Amino acid sequence: MYEGVVQDLIDELGRLPGVGPKSAQRIAFHILQAEPADVRRLTHVLAEVKDKVRFCAVCGNVAQEERCRVCADPRRDPAVICVVEESKDVVAIERTREFRGTYHVLGGAISPIDGVGPDDLRIRELLARLADGSVTELILATDPNLEGEATATYLARLVSAMGLKVTRLASGLPVGGDLEYADEVTLGRAFEGRRTLDV
Amino acid sequence: MYEGVVQDLIDELGRLPGVGPKSAQRIAFHILQAEPADVRRLTHVLAEVKDKVRFCAVCGNVAQEERCRVCADPRRDPAVICVVEESKDVVAIERTREFRGTYHVLGGAISPIDGVGPDDLRIRELLARLADGSVTELILATDPNLEGEATATYLARLVSAMGLKVTRLASGLPVGGDLEYADEVTLGRAFEGRRTLDV
Repeated sequence: MYEGVVQDLIDELGRLPGVGPKSAQRIAFHILQAEPADVRRLTHVLAEVKDKVRFCAVCGNVAQEERCRVCADPRRDPAVICVVEESKDVVAIERTREFRGTYHVLGGAISPIDGVGPDDLRIRELLARLADGSVTELILATDPNLEGEATATYLARLVSAMGLKVTRLASGLPVGGDLEYADEVTLGRAFEGRRTLDV
Repeated sequence: MYEGVVQDLIDELGRLPGVGPKSAQRIAFHILQAEPADVRRLTHVLAEVKDKVRFCAVCGNVAQEERCRVCADPRRDPAVICVVEESKDVVAIERTREFRGTYHVLGGAISPIDGVGPDDLRIRELLARLADGSVTELILATDPNLEGEATATYLARLVSAMGLKVTRLASGLPVGGDLEYADEVTLGRAFEGRRTLDV
């Protein structure tokens, strides 16, 4: 509907995840009216990110050096590995400041419906990290959904003979949430995992 | 939270309209994993749009030449001008295939609260187009909200002595909508504007 290059921009923006045709149009007009310097900054950083960012040779997290910030930090405990699906999950866990071990980013979860099998994930690399027996605990922090649970179960079975502690993040009611709005599966998990209060 | 350039990209994306921190993160990771050629196409079109797109010398619509496609089309009637706020509105009206006149893009609407007065809009350019008396009808197609109505009223008064037909798009119930879900102002307008059915 738009003239040449404006329509091209709307089309390209519309290919981004979560950007529908209306948002693509709004962003395109924002860019048309924006300062050229602002747009140059965006195009520059887009190019740079493809140029500079790679994936950590150890854990698969996004990194600017050979190793990511976590793996390069000598204060982090390499004997505890927290397995997550994506780099986004690393950031979410880092934000809690609760965890002082290292990560392993799988690059997704097992999902037969999407054609993702164990071989498509960084599981071989995980087994290589476990091979020398120095790792004591593996925390399976894949998403609490069907694919994440399946992946956690698969991994737990795979390493069961290695004699390390394998844990899974607790499921339960979200803090600050309202019990009556919790879905039944979450509420069921919260019951299952109930703990004795020491008073 | 992210390493250098990844965070830069998330920040730049987050400056786009309608892109919150979560979407910015999702888009950034999409770009990290995308084919370099796809990202090059996006950066290319971003640069090109700033380079090539200008605004029509006649109506202010986005254009790739000195005149936009509508103003350059000899089949369009220059005696009828439809006044809209933005280029997006031109596209919306073009989609109806109902209108064969030309446009005038104001670049916004009068909004004292946002500090937008008549001098900030392309009103002087509109008056210049009306000066030679060849225009017979001015259709005020600004948005049916407070700012759009105020702008339409302002323009109608401004040109009232010029002896041309000034019209406003009809307000009423959206086609395919449900009467019970219409807000009272829309429903009120629909009553006001009711027409005799010829049966």
